[in-house]
Amino acid sequence: MAFASDIEIARAARKLPIQAIGAKLGIPEAALLPYGHDKAKVGQPFIAGLKDRPDGKLILVTAINPTPAGEGKTTTTVGLGDGLNRIGKRAVVCIREASLGPNFGMKGGAAGGGMAQVVPMEEMNLHFTGDFHAITSAHNLLAAMIDNHIYWGNTLDIDARRVVWRRVMDMNDRALRDVVVNLGGVANGFPRQTGFDITVASEVMAILCLARDLDDLQERLGNIVVAYTRAKTPVTARDIKADGAMTVLLKDAMQPNLVQTLENNPAFVHGGPFANIAHGCNSVIATTTALKLGEYVVTEAGFGADLGAEKFFDIKCRKAGLRPAAAVIVATVRAMKMNGGVAKADLGTENVAAVQAGCPNLGRHITNVKGFGVPVVVAINHFTTDTEAEIQAVKDYVAAQGAEAVLCKHWAQGSAGIEDLARKVVALAESGVADFAPLYPDAMPLLAKIETIAKRIYHAEAVVADKAVVDQLKAWEAAGHGHLPVCIAKTQYSFTTDPTVRGAPTGHSIPVREVRLSAGAGFVVAICGEIMTMPGLPRVPSAEVIRLNADGDVEGLF
Amino acid sequence: MAFASDIEIARAARKLPIQAIGAKLGIPEAALLPYGHDKAKVGQPFIAGLKDRPDGKLILVTAINPTPAGEGKTTTTVGLGDGLNRIGKRAVVCIREASLGPNFGMKGGAAGGGMAQVVPMEEMNLHFTGDFHAITSAHNLLAAMIDNHIYWGNTLDIDARRVVWRRVMDMNDRALRDVVVNLGGVANGFPRQTGFDITVASEVMAILCLARDLDDLQERLGNIVVAYTRAKTPVTARDIKADGAMTVLLKDAMQPNLVQTLENNPAFVHGGPFANIAHGCNSVIATTTALKLGEYVVTEAGFGADLGAEKFFDIKCRKAGLRPAAAVIVATVRAMKMNGGVAKADLGTENVAAVQAGCPNLGRHITNVKGFGVPVVVAINHFTTDTEAEIQAVKDYVAAQGAEAVLCKHWAQGSAGIEDLARKVVALAESGVADFAPLYPDAMPLLAKIETIAKRIYHAEAVVADKAVVDQLKAWEAAGHGHLPVCIAKTQYSFTTDPTVRGAPTGHSIPVREVRLSAGAGFVVAICGEIMTMPGLPRVPSAEVIRLNADGDVEGLF
Repeated sequence: MAFASDIEIARAARKLPIQAIGAKLGIPEAALLPYGHDKAKVGQPFIAGLKDRPDGKLILVTAINPTPAGEGKTTTTVGLGDGLNRIGKRAVVCIREASLGPNFGMKGGAAGGGMAQVVPMEEMNLHFTGDFHAITSAHNLLAAMIDNHIYWGNTLDIDARRVVWRRVMDMNDRALRDVVVNLGGVANGFPRQTGFDITVASEVMAILCLARDLDDLQERLGNIVVAYTRAKTPVTARDIKADGAMTVLLKDAMQPNLVQTLENNPAFVHGGPFANIAHGCNSVIATTTALKLGEYVVTEAGFGADLGAEKFFDIKCRKAGLRPAAAVIVATVRAMKMNGGVAKADLGTENVAAVQAGCPNLGRHITNVKGFGVPVVVAINHFTTDTEAEIQAVKDYVAAQGAEAVLCKHWAQGSAGIEDLARKVVALAESGVADFAPLYPDAMPLLAKIETIAKRIYHAEAVVADKAVVDQLKAWEAAGHGHLPVCIAKTQYSFTTDPTVRGAPTGHSIPVREVRLSAGAGFVVAICGEIMTMPGLPRVPSAEVIRLNADGDVEGLF
Repeated sequence: MAFASDIEIARAARKLPIQAIGAKLGIPEAALLPYGHDKAKVGQPFIAGLKDRPDGKLILVTAINPTPAGEGKTTTTVGLGDGLNRIGKRAVVCIREASLGPNFGMKGGAAGGGMAQVVPMEEMNLHFTGDFHAITSAHNLLAAMIDNHIYWGNTLDIDARRVVWRRVMDMNDRALRDVVVNLGGVANGFPRQTGFDITVASEVMAILCLARDLDDLQERLGNIVVAYTRAKTPVTARDIKADGAMTVLLKDAMQPNLVQTLENNPAFVHGGPFANIAHGCNSVIATTTALKLGEYVVTEAGFGADLGAEKFFDIKCRKAGLRPAAAVIVATVRAMKMNGGVAKADLGTENVAAVQAGCPNLGRHITNVKGFGVPVVVAINHFTTDTEAEIQAVKDYVAAQGAEAVLCKHWAQGSAGIEDLARKVVALAESGVADFAPLYPDAMPLLAKIETIAKRIYHAEAVVADKAVVDQLKAWEAAGHGHLPVCIAKTQYSFTTDPTVRGAPTGHSIPVREVRLSAGAGFVVAICGEIMTMPGLPRVPSAEVIRLNADGDVEGLF
């Protein structure tokens, strides 16, 4: 089986009916809303009834800076969930949903890989349970209501030049990045320039993923700043009276999706905000529900630990009151070698010196995560080309940092290959050493928050920001948004803003080009580099070869 | 209960699990893909296995020209389905899905009304099973691939001025009617003017509703003409290589949705093409599946019989090989009075003379439908303000036309109120008098087809068409599209193109402003009047008051 492709393994999975998966967590059949036989949403009333139960232990899976070698963060998240179940812990995996659009550009992604996957893979790469479509609808209803308000008299005095709410589509469509709407004369409105983002970049996506319940969802939707008046007063979705209808459109999407791993263990797959202009984690409601149902919840954050874990801690955990018990940092021998300067083509050759040279990237992430008061274990996600000496080099390095690195073979062996890591995670989590605290207090000024992250996490010398940026941050503080955490949008490939700088660089500065307010989601975005919010299709999109074969299976998507 | 609102009645429904509804039709649980507990899709393999079974009898429910008084066509369709079940016939209702977007402008519609409804109403007015979202995705993927093709070198030599494939959104958003895309410079493409239609106006919707199976779906998608080259050669979706991926996006949407009536009888709710620029009927696959499972299938067509029934017969039945056994024409005393010149405010006062004056509108529809070789019965959908004398006037008029009018009280009484109609329908259907034939042969030239419909159905004197229109029709004939049926886009309120002309006018002419080719769906659209393919929101959209109440129910949508 180890040589079968992910999709072949996924298709061969012996799935249990989703009701049987729910039963493992004590969810009665009536509380599950099935979508086919292998997917279900967990009903809101059942979730509301869990609130007095104790919480299980929350384990974050994060990683080194991603390299073209691949690190296998989701694979390890899924594998660890199976491994914990294997050693007798009731564990639940919590990961993000995939975006539909990009699958028609490049090949679609598995949820995990090898013997550590969540299924049904095909459906998770297509419409799944319709959550992203609901987000698209809610987002675009608000957009339509804004232009409609202006059309019918504009009693809120919206400055049509200052409408900041764009439209979204779950599609890679560069033609929509920059458009002029309302053309065609009196019947169609006042022309203005705007654009479309991909749905995962919608603030509605971030809101859905941070809302505690439907009431909180509506409150946050109402807080979205959609435009400014000529006097620069913010206009919100509540002013437009869109918050109620948006909540109605999202009521099913707010319910977490239950699926299963290849080993028939429960997994929640719910929400998928961008990890750059948003916080990049699965939904709070899925995580908090899983914590009521499982002894262990294994979740992941986007990108490497510098961006992903920091946002997980400072945005998601802060806002949702989550207290992680341990963190796993995923590394691979191959990625260490790339950090040590080896080209991708040469990764198959043993090179212990390069592994050692690359390890400081891992070391910095260990230090960073420990700085949040969360104990760390390193998972070495095994590749068949890894040599004993290379693996030992990573282990030795990690030991010198006061942590432990555990070799994991879940890709090839499933839960049997990751028992050691599972036991280590349980030991760390049950040791009680975790003492989580976010990096900065709510009360810190916004610019100081950005500086704190830049210096403590990216190990930069300084933050560089124009007066316009500084003034904007001060204006938001004056408007009552100073308590918000900041969300850094930056390249995920480096601690610097230069994606080619690997390892553990120092002495760099972080330029803040632009800041944006996500008042509904509840954070201020600091954009440090080029951020693309609407991808394009490549010259030969994978859509050209995607089709149903004679068996009705999807070909070309994976 | 008769004084409760539709939504109150719908919420109070004692629904059976959808598996129990499927069992009534002999559909095994494994062949049903549940969406929650009260909706399911019927699996393709099960449908494929039905092909050698005999067909049940197909009953079309159509109506007089709609008036503001309301005629209750869907209510009668649902009621008749329940009535047939009540008298011991295994009957299945087949109706269209609702479009999401318009519900946020004006109030959303029930599927039927009073005691003759299909449930769950709320979900059918929101995302339902995601079919329309899938259509939106498939449509917009093709759009993205066209612009992407031009962006990367345009090897097909598409004339960017002649891209006829627009984008769609399931939203009332007039701002998107007329837009310029691809702005922003080299990275974003070549600017060009285009626009968005509402999803129900997509040719993909019409294709999904006319396709026999997934192979036929892909073939039709491939045939869509999306653009022309500088030499005016058509470019198809197949040339763009989008047909396979579009089919993948639509594979679940192609499966009919099973729900139930208030009386727990089966209903397929599937597809919803515009009744003006498309044919306005539920899907062929739902209808043909229902015919294999039920003794009777009751379905409806859009608008009045002049537009709806004609397209049902000449497009849907012609293409799918359906042979309707009988037709019900729904009329109301109120609508007859309006056709007789009474204002809406005065409909509550008895006026037998006005009823008699309005009846020729009904009479013409009776003649028209009989002209297709389909026997007719008239259903008088009872309103409490109707008087005995008014009802008798309609019955007398219909009898003089060689048909029978049956008073129906299904709105107030459910199936008990429509037994007489059900028995009459069975008598007509089992009499064997039906001898269906479409209005014109495939081989007739396109302009002659338009003229035939105008004269035989609208009773017009002539068709008026510019040389450009005539030349275009000839060009399509030369390109091999001459065998297609025509789809008239015209006001539904009148036999003329003037919506204020009620009754049974004669002496008018039908101007054809424009013609469009739907080569994938398989018809030529003749546009006779103003056709809006992207609605706008009203001054006070219903979205402003739509919200979840404390019980989690949707308020303001109905």
